[in-house]
Amino acid sequence: MTLKLYNTLTGKKEPFEPIEDEVRIYSCGQTIYEDMHVGNAKTYSAWDVLTRYLKWKGYSVFHVMNITDVGHLTDDADRGEDKIAKSAREKKLEPMELVTKQVIKLYREMDRLNMCRANIYPRATGHMVEMIEAVKKIIGNNYAYEVDGSVYFDVPGFAEKHGYPVLGGRTIDDLEAGAGGRISDEEIKEKHSPLDFALWIKAPPEHLMQWPSPWSEGYPGWHLECSVMGLKYLGKTFDIHTGGIDHIFPHHPNERAQNMAMHNLKEEPIKYWLHSAHITVEGEKMSKSKGNFYTVEELLERYDPMVLRTFFAGLHYRSHSDFSLKTLKEAEKKLSRLDNSIRLAKESEGGKKETLSEKINKVLTEFEEAMDDDLNTPLALSKLIAFSKDINNNLDNRRVILDEAVVVTKELANVLGIKLDREQADIKAEPYIDLLIEVRENLREKKEYELADRIRKRLESKGIKVEDTESGPRWYGI
Amino acid sequence: MTLKLYNTLTGKKEPFEPIEDEVRIYSCGQTIYEDMHVGNAKTYSAWDVLTRYLKWKGYSVFHVMNITDVGHLTDDADRGEDKIAKSAREKKLEPMELVTKQVIKLYREMDRLNMCRANIYPRATGHMVEMIEAVKKIIGNNYAYEVDGSVYFDVPGFAEKHGYPVLGGRTIDDLEAGAGGRISDEEIKEKHSPLDFALWIKAPPEHLMQWPSPWSEGYPGWHLECSVMGLKYLGKTFDIHTGGIDHIFPHHPNERAQNMAMHNLKEEPIKYWLHSAHITVEGEKMSKSKGNFYTVEELLERYDPMVLRTFFAGLHYRSHSDFSLKTLKEAEKKLSRLDNSIRLAKESEGGKKETLSEKINKVLTEFEEAMDDDLNTPLALSKLIAFSKDINNNLDNRRVILDEAVVVTKELANVLGIKLDREQADIKAEPYIDLLIEVRENLREKKEYELADRIRKRLESKGIKVEDTESGPRWYGI
Repeated sequence: MTLKLYNTLTGKKEPFEPIEDEVRIYSCGQTIYEDMHVGNAKTYSAWDVLTRYLKWKGYSVFHVMNITDVGHLTDDADRGEDKIAKSAREKKLEPMELVTKQVIKLYREMDRLNMCRANIYPRATGHMVEMIEAVKKIIGNNYAYEVDGSVYFDVPGFAEKHGYPVLGGRTIDDLEAGAGGRISDEEIKEKHSPLDFALWIKAPPEHLMQWPSPWSEGYPGWHLECSVMGLKYLGKTFDIHTGGIDHIFPHHPNERAQNMAMHNLKEEPIKYWLHSAHITVEGEKMSKSKGNFYTVEELLERYDPMVLRTFFAGLHYRSHSDFSLKTLKEAEKKLSRLDNSIRLAKESEGGKKETLSEKINKVLTEFEEAMDDDLNTPLALSKLIAFSKDINNNLDNRRVILDEAVVVTKELANVLGIKLDREQADIKAEPYIDLLIEVRENLREKKEYELADRIRKRLESKGIKVEDTESGPRWYGI
Repeated sequence: MTLKLYNTLTGKKEPFEPIEDEVRIYSCGQTIYEDMHVGNAKTYSAWDVLTRYLKWKGYSVFHVMNITDVGHLTDDADRGEDKIAKSAREKKLEPMELVTKQVIKLYREMDRLNMCRANIYPRATGHMVEMIEAVKKIIGNNYAYEVDGSVYFDVPGFAEKHGYPVLGGRTIDDLEAGAGGRISDEEIKEKHSPLDFALWIKAPPEHLMQWPSPWSEGYPGWHLECSVMGLKYLGKTFDIHTGGIDHIFPHHPNERAQNMAMHNLKEEPIKYWLHSAHITVEGEKMSKSKGNFYTVEELLERYDPMVLRTFFAGLHYRSHSDFSLKTLKEAEKKLSRLDNSIRLAKESEGGKKETLSEKINKVLTEFEEAMDDDLNTPLALSKLIAFSKDINNNLDNRRVILDEAVVVTKELANVLGIKLDREQADIKAEPYIDLLIEVRENLREKKEYELADRIRKRLESKGIKVEDTESGPRWYGI
């Protein structure tokens, strides 16, 4: 069976054929000025499932996900303030201090969400020399020009030779028609065309993050880092580039143009471009002012991370989806169903039937068919849940078949990023100790002193000291 | 009371006076090619206690700890292979892939060891432009010269004008006498003097990590990053520089020389240089071949992180110390003593005496005196443990005084990086659930069905399902 992926570059579902044995993937990651929110997590979960599925199909995968720590302005059209610098100023931190905090937090939250580690998380500030070299090359190949210390990419000049397929089916003409509205005369006075974008931006002296370059003390344009880091770690041509739909324009066409301009490439530098749709929250665009903004941090305070992953698996990455606490409840139920069928299969005494064998083959095929169709995770998940019902209805199968059913359920859930049948290490002990103390009180009321005392002693042997005070029993860890 | 610190630069204990209000500290951190071992952890714990103590004394602190991800060769005399590249080759990883894995692990282990986050963890590869600019400046100020694409710092030329105090009481003459033995004629053919060190090293083509520069495709000398990152984040002069004793030569004198050469500085760029001694393991130098090499990761599998911190607090940072599993046992006892006295004070009914008040003032003074004397943590810890005995012997004090004793114990332990009286979040729930199931069985045997059933229901409300099977009860998380 062949995986087909929807390629935004061509607007078609295409069979996936890697360039070399190892599949090389670049994912646009977090601009690290704020916490990961539920929309970011939905997108990164999609790419996590992509790499998991490719591995499940037998490919080896090399995955790079960048972290933007400079150059991403508050407006995509080379205007506004640096997002990191702005957020750092608001929080009264040094920009790199903010980056340090946020990067550590991001890794921790990705771990909790059971996202496989990318092979490299390169950071923009770690590639300043390479970015400056890239600008030199692009100028050298006559695709960029300098104006007063800033350097701009010549989009019309490039488009004439190599085309400028605006991803998502739009053409450069669509942009030219609309460009007047995007940028005021004042703002474009340095640009030869409103379509041009900055490769290097001369920094005002008060700008906190700036580096020396042949053109000015300044900083790189936002699009540049992905070109440079993709080329450095994945090569001049690689397989898959992922991002959110907001990257369809201008980030990704500009990145593509830079890659080609740098090396005078004739062929497409990146074969498949995948874009994940955003989610709304209770029907509305998520925004802090509306109070419907959910960070991963706050959701993980209230929900099992696997509930979130089950929720994300239930969405197709290209579909606009809606998030609400109600949808999480539904995801929670789905997760329970999967966990319960495993539990029942494990507990079952077994029997002599072999009916489940056929169901196992069926779910494997159906799961792969669904995933092969542009990663249709909602369908794959529903097939897996249907299989969990098959398990529940066939607990009288041979032990070895029940075991296989458990393995297959866990394996397929794992491809979707859902860890089932977890160790209970994360369950906190306090409520159970409280309950033991309460039971002991009940026993003492019933004058069952021996059992009551045994509870106290057993707790003490585990390092929990129970003290009876005037206001009732209290316990402490010794 | 005034803090005195032993300054390796002068070889004396000196009163600590910060240059400005905020104390600025730079710590040489991990070269990220291998896991943090117990010796690293001992050093970083010392600097963690330094920042904690300064904060406790009312200073505000800005702490930078670097992460070396390029340029640290296997030999300090500009020879050998890049440590990262070598380790990556051995592990069959890309160098930056190794760095990604190791950095994430380092942060996690530092968290578990209750080390306060530094404000910034800058990485060498993130400061390539700044390093190249620094080399330009040093050449411009006539303290460096280029030979065939590599750039060397002119140590004798610099020493003539600014001195070259080799930290640890040695002089440049000691080095010159010994230098012939350090470097062969072959190796120094590019260097004007055997004391000179590399600022920029021309890379052989097969070298994985290299960057373009005005001199060659190459990579920075190891000493350069600390100069550049210290200057960038802490300014031309700052308060404290920390490191291990292996940095006393050549890393730190070279760093000092670079800082001064870059800006033609006349004054000392860094006021206090602190160096932490290494630890041996069971009397021998720790080494992988001897099998006495302990990583933090493996120790944390077997020991409470606070046992490790108690062990480190029991060592003076400048004393050579020995580590063994037996010494950890002793640390475990010390930790229990502190925890127990808090528990007893909390549990006590209290009384009318006020004898503990005086002891509280005494421990506060003694603790500060010990710490003021070049961070004498072993003495400070022993005073705190003596105080815990005072608590145990004075449980009949007024409730408010007992409460104060608890607060003071926790506060002082915290200065030493030891978290007492912890939340029980880390206690695993399984044994308590098992005990509840067992109690329920006992109740059913005694025909106390109502209480037995209440336990089952309460467990279920917490997501624990109890199933009675032929082989006895079993439970699962739902």
